[in-house]
Amino acid sequence: MRIGVLTGGGDCPGLNAVIRASVRKGVQFYGFEFVGFRDGWKGPLDRMTKPLDVEAVRGILPRGGTILGSSRTNPLKVEGGVERIKENLAAEGVDALIAIGGEDTLGVATVLGDEYGVNVVGVPKTIDNDLNATDYTFGFDTAVHVATEAIDRLHTTAESHSRALIVEVMGRHAGWIALHSGLAGGANVILIPEVTFDIDEVCGWIESRFARGYAPIVVVAEGATPKDGQMEVSSGELDAFGHVRLGGIGERLADEIERRTKKEARTTVLGHTQRGGTPSPFDRWLATRFGLHAIDAVHDGDFGKMVALRGTDIVRVPLAAATATLKTVPMSLYEEAKVFFG
Amino acid sequence: MRIGVLTGGGDCPGLNAVIRASVRKGVQFYGFEFVGFRDGWKGPLDRMTKPLDVEAVRGILPRGGTILGSSRTNPLKVEGGVERIKENLAAEGVDALIAIGGEDTLGVATVLGDEYGVNVVGVPKTIDNDLNATDYTFGFDTAVHVATEAIDRLHTTAESHSRALIVEVMGRHAGWIALHSGLAGGANVILIPEVTFDIDEVCGWIESRFARGYAPIVVVAEGATPKDGQMEVSSGELDAFGHVRLGGIGERLADEIERRTKKEARTTVLGHTQRGGTPSPFDRWLATRFGLHAIDAVHDGDFGKMVALRGTDIVRVPLAAATATLKTVPMSLYEEAKVFFG
Amino acid sequence: MRIGVLTGGGDCPGLNAVIRASVRKGVQFYGFEFVGFRDGWKGPLDRMTKPLDVEAVRGILPRGGTILGSSRTNPLKVEGGVERIKENLAAEGVDALIAIGGEDTLGVATVLGDEYGVNVVGVPKTIDNDLNATDYTFGFDTAVHVATEAIDRLHTTAESHSRALIVEVMGRHAGWIALHSGLAGGANVILIPEVTFDIDEVCGWIESRFARGYAPIVVVAEGATPKDGQMEVSSGELDAFGHVRLGGIGERLADEIERRTKKEARTTVLGHTQRGGTPSPFDRWLATRFGLHAIDAVHDGDFGKMVALRGTDIVRVPLAAATATLKTVPMSLYEEAKVFFG
Amino acid sequence: MRIGVLTGGGDCPGLNAVIRASVRKGVQFYGFEFVGFRDGWKGPLDRMTKPLDVEAVRGILPRGGTILGSSRTNPLKVEGGVERIKENLAAEGVDALIAIGGEDTLGVATVLGDEYGVNVVGVPKTIDNDLNATDYTFGFDTAVHVATEAIDRLHTTAESHSRALIVEVMGRHAGWIALHSGLAGGANVILIPEVTFDIDEVCGWIESRFARGYAPIVVVAEGATPKDGQMEVSSGELDAFGHVRLGGIGERLADEIERRTKKEARTTVLGHTQRGGTPSPFDRWLATRFGLHAIDAVHDGDFGKMVALRGTDIVRVPLAAATATLKTVPMSLYEEAKVFFG
Repeated sequence: MRIGVLTGGGDCPGLNAVIRASVRKGVQFYGFEFVGFRDGWKGPLDRMTKPLDVEAVRGILPRGGTILGSSRTNPLKVEGGVERIKENLAAEGVDALIAIGGEDTLGVATVLGDEYGVNVVGVPKTIDNDLNATDYTFGFDTAVHVATEAIDRLHTTAESHSRALIVEVMGRHAGWIALHSGLAGGANVILIPEVTFDIDEVCGWIESRFARGYAPIVVVAEGATPKDGQMEVSSGELDAFGHVRLGGIGERLADEIERRTKKEARTTVLGHTQRGGTPSPFDRWLATRFGLHAIDAVHDGDFGKMVALRGTDIVRVPLAAATATLKTVPMSLYEEAKVFFG
Repeated sequence: MRIGVLTGGGDCPGLNAVIRASVRKGVQFYGFEFVGFRDGWKGPLDRMTKPLDVEAVRGILPRGGTILGSSRTNPLKVEGGVERIKENLAAEGVDALIAIGGEDTLGVATVLGDEYGVNVVGVPKTIDNDLNATDYTFGFDTAVHVATEAIDRLHTTAESHSRALIVEVMGRHAGWIALHSGLAGGANVILIPEVTFDIDEVCGWIESRFARGYAPIVVVAEGATPKDGQMEVSSGELDAFGHVRLGGIGERLADEIERRTKKEARTTVLGHTQRGGTPSPFDRWLATRFGLHAIDAVHDGDFGKMVALRGTDIVRVPLAAATATLKTVPMSLYEEAKVFFG
Repeated sequence: MRIGVLTGGGDCPGLNAVIRASVRKGVQFYGFEFVGFRDGWKGPLDRMTKPLDVEAVRGILPRGGTILGSSRTNPLKVEGGVERIKENLAAEGVDALIAIGGEDTLGVATVLGDEYGVNVVGVPKTIDNDLNATDYTFGFDTAVHVATEAIDRLHTTAESHSRALIVEVMGRHAGWIALHSGLAGGANVILIPEVTFDIDEVCGWIESRFARGYAPIVVVAEGATPKDGQMEVSSGELDAFGHVRLGGIGERLADEIERRTKKEARTTVLGHTQRGGTPSPFDRWLATRFGLHAIDAVHDGDFGKMVALRGTDIVRVPLAAATATLKTVPMSLYEEAKVFFG
Repeated sequence: MRIGVLTGGGDCPGLNAVIRASVRKGVQFYGFEFVGFRDGWKGPLDRMTKPLDVEAVRGILPRGGTILGSSRTNPLKVEGGVERIKENLAAEGVDALIAIGGEDTLGVATVLGDEYGVNVVGVPKTIDNDLNATDYTFGFDTAVHVATEAIDRLHTTAESHSRALIVEVMGRHAGWIALHSGLAGGANVILIPEVTFDIDEVCGWIESRFARGYAPIVVVAEGATPKDGQMEVSSGELDAFGHVRLGGIGERLADEIERRTKKEARTTVLGHTQRGGTPSPFDRWLATRFGLHAIDAVHDGDFGKMVALRGTDIVRVPLAAATATLKTVPMSLYEEAKVFFG
């Protein structure tokens, strides 16, 4: 059997660990051959391949990024895209495909499997941890590490000076990184996209913290938003890549806090540092096990499935289920964290 | 209500996070008062207390160790010990007790609750992750971090020189730390207490690795043992504290590998570095949630229970169940890891 | 003898290590007594003290921040400020003062010593490493660590996607952090306050990097500026604390790079994470030795001096010399680094 | 011009950074060509080469180990070895050689240059920091990091339990790593090869520490030795590689402390973790600058020299001077550290 592998969507520590585990077990246990497709769905679309064998995956376990490259190319939006993929898979002699990616990448995989009969096994990937059907996705723990370490560092400087410190973390639609790093870092306020925040309440927490003699630390997910009309927003102009020009929520919040509390506020924007670097041991373990179980699913001919973590077990779930709904932070968890606010 | 808190057994990153979370929620949400008992069961036995309020738990979230101290004192082995504890709890006006500890500490808690009517809630703690009824215990992820980082460092030096490198990690009865760090670190051999190892097979893996031009890394749990009669063991003399004098399994293994393969072998013994330092974000999150849910259980009057992790949920399980059997590494998981051996 | 100690100016990892070393050696070797003044020069000005003995400095070596607090209070700008300080020092029975701080703090110390006869020994402190007369100041190595780790993380994500990544680091007037972290992190462009940058040249380096198939990483000191009129700057409105409102140089640069190169650019702003957290071993070693030598200078009655690092030796230099000129990055070093640009 | 490069001796973080910097500047600024020799002096001896150009050095800055491999082969001890090297250098068209290594490697370089007219420039390398004529060698700061982090972790566990903790660090002939990490980590006893220790005094420090309610941490260099006859030593049997069988000084010290103080003692042996992993920012900066200045020396035709750090400058010193004497810890520095003993 000849297996294709691709990685799609944004960067995420652990991608290489998945690839390595699938290839190692596939070659050594099942006698499979592999071919890597470059740059996500672009690879099978344009027949861009990369040799993939045991030697090619040597030493990549601790490395961030993906040796296969990635892209956000969506073949469903390309005229005749799916047909080209089928042809190219046939031309490459590929019997089954392991697609490692997030909502978009797995959405394509679902269509390819369900409607076009491609043998696909999915591996979930999102740094934001917002994919349903799996307890965690790899990359998330690493991102939480980076954010928690930053919060830890801010604590000492926050206490030496009476200054509010804001940390902007990833999370456009779900606040998992903010919640976990905020809880682990001992933040005084955590703001997530799931709950529109009240700037008066935020300033209240900040002031009560100052009043007790300590400087507040606010963790804000990039997708968090204030209640309507509460904050003087920047022009809101978007750049060509869909981001807010000059001034994300972290900076705007600092600005607003200064205006309202008359206390200095400074922002750290972690940005892509959350997506890079070596994966944490948990993420390497999870990604490795996903890779092992994905190739087992291929071996079993159990296609149209995605591997997922349930407790300490790796299970297989229907691909379609994985992308059906976004996994957001439930209110009960957010309320739990509020014990530490203010 | 007045709540006593104690921490028993060996050190474990996250103990302070549990204490902090219980106190913060207990005081702020439920209006409880707290008293800390020092040095595990020694505290209530000898009425050694420590004030415990919101101020006392400030800033302790990222700190290893325990502000309450710990010990291995077992009041069940002290003449009239349990009665003294009951008296002292009454004298301190304690309505309920949160006991944070491992098998021994929770075993005492079980007896106190079941047989003596003490209102106890347990919080599981073991760096070895070998407690049943919970997916993970806090401290384990931190230990895996320390071990994985060490293995990562050895990789570069192993590759530059043709030398076998051994890492001895914690785990007397269960190989969880060895398994997870070995998998995350890309070790070539992982030896765990659950499986008596065959030194010939180990040397075979090592030599096949050398033959491919790379240096092997062996992760060995301190409790791993060779098949009967296979290794020239050291005298085996025990010190006054029950440890093998001069030469744990890591060193003895290096010695044996040198004899058999004629290749140099060097050992790193991580020792107590695995128990210390700041807890990882995962451990802080888990310990914090354990603390929050333990005080909820107290508030609910749900005694004789232990908090536990199941997937991403914190649940309550009977205390007795927690310590019934040791959670060891199942063979299926060990076999899974063997893909990467040799 | 009774010695006062104060820490002034911005936060800096290593302050506690200085205090600890001076107190330990002062008490144990010289039999001195100590008193801590709180919040920089505000302490002696308003007679705000804190007990300072061997117990008070226990465990503070690895902690960021300062147990004495800090401020930017300048007694020279307070009517009768210097006189009040002299009175308060007398009232506290202080025979000599150790002042730990940067340009401003040491400037006050110089005046107090030279013009008012106060027995002062200075310890240089600036995270920016821009104080003359010492090879390095503590805190700098830690800041370089934080910045280098961020750059390391960006490398993997930069390579997986064709995106320019900007890291904004500290350095208003001197580019030491940018230079060292940029060199250590393998940045493709380093921009420092000492050299006005040409945005066309910067975009040229970025495009040549993209052309070779790799994504560029730009390290920019917060004080770096473009040549006149080259960049569409934001309104430049300053907040009440003297910072640019919404959009520091890092964000503005990303914005400009997107406009010009049509490639996506994303910014990480490290902010105060560079000033916090545990000091690096080098900084602990340097700060500890500064503390030991400062108290030796006090013991020797060698006042009006500052301790300084020269090679591997700690020497004493006149306080006045220390703050005479800013130590900026020499062109020769910047040229050396340009080997790696583009 | 065509330049050969080799790395000799033990592993050391920063080797790759030197290679990269020399190649980058050599190719881009001076138009040189390069050839890598594999495995130290074995490479030119047996004409084992490796292509070395800008592409070959891409991405290696943060990687431990050496892409050229290393060995302890000494051509001076090989019949006709030096002649073979001269022939092979000629056959490879090598005009000049950059030799990166410690005492042994540079000793060979000195002979080749002085007696055989080979154009050699040396780059000093030793993790032990014991080479004369340079303030620091790269790799040392990284080793100190690893050791300090271990000590930091032991502090929390040491305080929670009344147990002495020993850390054995590298340093056969010089105690630099022990001194710096012990000072940075706040160790209570530091034992170095330069000073034969008195086990009674060591136990005295340990007991005084216990008496004050805290657990002692002892940092011991692997080459430290007790006064004659003081400790029951193990058999002292050496393995085939010249190491003490079963029980280095760390373990033997723990054993002796238990016997004498009746307190439990546990040992961490860091071993080769000190030599591996990514170099610290300081080491990357130093190694990079060494590489840049080495190729400048080649360009200048300034052979028979070694690059060295003096303060913040890179200078050139005669190769012979570098290896004349071992740089050991001066007594004054050790005395300075004793403030913190006990």
